[in-house]
Amino acid sequence: MALNLPLQEAIEITATIAFAASGLIASARKNLDAFGVFVVTGASSFGGGTLRDILLDRRPFFWVEHAYWLWVILLLSLLAILFMRNRHIPLTERAIQIPDALGLGLFTALGTQIAIEHQMPLIVCALMGVTTAVFGGVLRDIFCNEIPKAFNDHQPYAVLAFIGSLTVVTLTQFHTPEWLTLSIAAALVSALRIMTIYFKWRLPSWKIEG
Amino acid sequence: MALNLPLQEAIEITATIAFAASGLIASARKNLDAFGVFVVTGASSFGGGTLRDILLDRRPFFWVEHAYWLWVILLLSLLAILFMRNRHIPLTERAIQIPDALGLGLFTALGTQIAIEHQMPLIVCALMGVTTAVFGGVLRDIFCNEIPKAFNDHQPYAVLAFIGSLTVVTLTQFHTPEWLTLSIAAALVSALRIMTIYFKWRLPSWKIEG
Amino acid sequence: MALNLPLQEAIEITATIAFAASGLIASARKNLDAFGVFVVTGASSFGGGTLRDILLDRRPFFWVEHAYWLWVILLLSLLAILFMRNRHIPLTERAIQIPDALGLGLFTALGTQIAIEHQMPLIVCALMGVTTAVFGGVLRDIFCNEIPKAFNDHQPYAVLAFIGSLTVVTLTQFHTPEWLTLSIAAALVSALRIMTIYFKWRLPSWKIEG
Repeated sequence: MALNLPLQEAIEITATIAFAASGLIASARKNLDAFGVFVVTGASSFGGGTLRDILLDRRPFFWVEHAYWLWVILLLSLLAILFMRNRHIPLTERAIQIPDALGLGLFTALGTQIAIEHQMPLIVCALMGVTTAVFGGVLRDIFCNEIPKAFNDHQPYAVLAFIGSLTVVTLTQFHTPEWLTLSIAAALVSALRIMTIYFKWRLPSWKIEG
Repeated sequence: MALNLPLQEAIEITATIAFAASGLIASARKNLDAFGVFVVTGASSFGGGTLRDILLDRRPFFWVEHAYWLWVILLLSLLAILFMRNRHIPLTERAIQIPDALGLGLFTALGTQIAIEHQMPLIVCALMGVTTAVFGGVLRDIFCNEIPKAFNDHQPYAVLAFIGSLTVVTLTQFHTPEWLTLSIAAALVSALRIMTIYFKWRLPSWKIEG
Repeated sequence: MALNLPLQEAIEITATIAFAASGLIASARKNLDAFGVFVVTGASSFGGGTLRDILLDRRPFFWVEHAYWLWVILLLSLLAILFMRNRHIPLTERAIQIPDALGLGLFTALGTQIAIEHQMPLIVCALMGVTTAVFGGVLRDIFCNEIPKAFNDHQPYAVLAFIGSLTVVTLTQFHTPEWLTLSIAAALVSALRIMTIYFKWRLPSWKIEG
């Protein structure tokens, strides 16, 4: 019943690259130095999965088992700095939204699946999916000294991850094959996220005097 | 000699609710969206105990063993948003001070007790009590992008937790029954906190040129 | 082949004191209260090593095994507050740079060595050295609600730790005695850091439009 491992790895790698790009851009906008870029990029990529593994007491971490990924992040950071020193590129939010939507769907599906394998209660599995998908970005924003965008951008983001992880949990209850479960959930989340951006959907928020 | 478990659980639940309320109000004041409210409320409630358990390498976490609590926090967040959208309620600091004082006392006593069960050195037990009681609020403030109030409000707060956890450590040395130890320490901390607010006690601070 | 333990301990203690001083000064400048000073000082001293140990799943923590150090930090915080209340001392960055450079070198060497003992991949060992040396300061700055200085001061700091940890990794490959490896790496990092300050070396950074 255990998940086909190369599939897990392929998902992890695609999502990692997508989130690394978001970290690179965020740290460039904050004008961080080379080390800042490396840490923020690494935290965006590996932060969510690492927190999930700490909470599940699961070892080794992805970046310990596949340590060459740390070299990739390191090289990406150096390349980005060299590249951007020479060209004046406008770093738009927009440039990152498609890969970010992809990463969101993939990490949600993967994180939920891993928690299911660890036989966590269903709501905890759902939360681990959300954590895997969202916490890298939260760390990125805390390091950049901002309120995490996932908490106050008022667009569906983590909510979509939550829908996706509930999808994984539900499909697993009905013994859907794992590759199908992961594909449906990841595609659903990514599609909803892209529609969110396109149609400018909004979350309900507060109207308060304080 | 192990602590009566239903008592531990009753304490954890009361303190959790008290701290959830503080998280709800803080996230409302920051105008966070639905997910932000859920995370900040959850972090306020479970953050201290979870950090304590990570440091002690203790599993399962409270919110894994009693996963229905995550549903409670989820529902509270939704209700709070629906409720507050329709009414314009002033969210005062004051509204939260009594439950917060209660939570402070209860979590201090519980956290210290758990560290004692794990046979930590006495000063570590005292610190674990303080961590359990205070770190949820610290996480809440970091997520809201503020200097943690526990660090710079210059009123006795964590210091009271420290007094409370030293009380637990001391009473335990004299083989006081656990229910009595916990009750005395929790009541002492909560009472001191309420007196702090009422009498406007202040901590010593710096006078510096920098 | 295991490292001579008193040497590890001597290094840990020297570096701890150096970083405690940096935490004391940072919290004084932010005008934190007594508890804030204690936490920020403790986090500066023990944060890097504790994160390393959580990531390596290594127990007990330094401050659990040598719990009297918590009393030292507590006393230092109280003394600092009493002392600074009575004198108006200018707290300059400069006052802390030499001990900080010392701590940087020592923690880098030690952290890398501990990861090697845990048979981590080489790049992970190097990163653990950097984490041990740098993360205490990162926590200190997050608690003080600032962008971590290690990420955006644009001077070589973490990069030097990275050079130092690669030095430990390389020398260990050639079976250099451990005391010699640690001494060379620590001295190299500390010397480079002091030269950085003296000669005002800078890291490359971004030139972007955002």
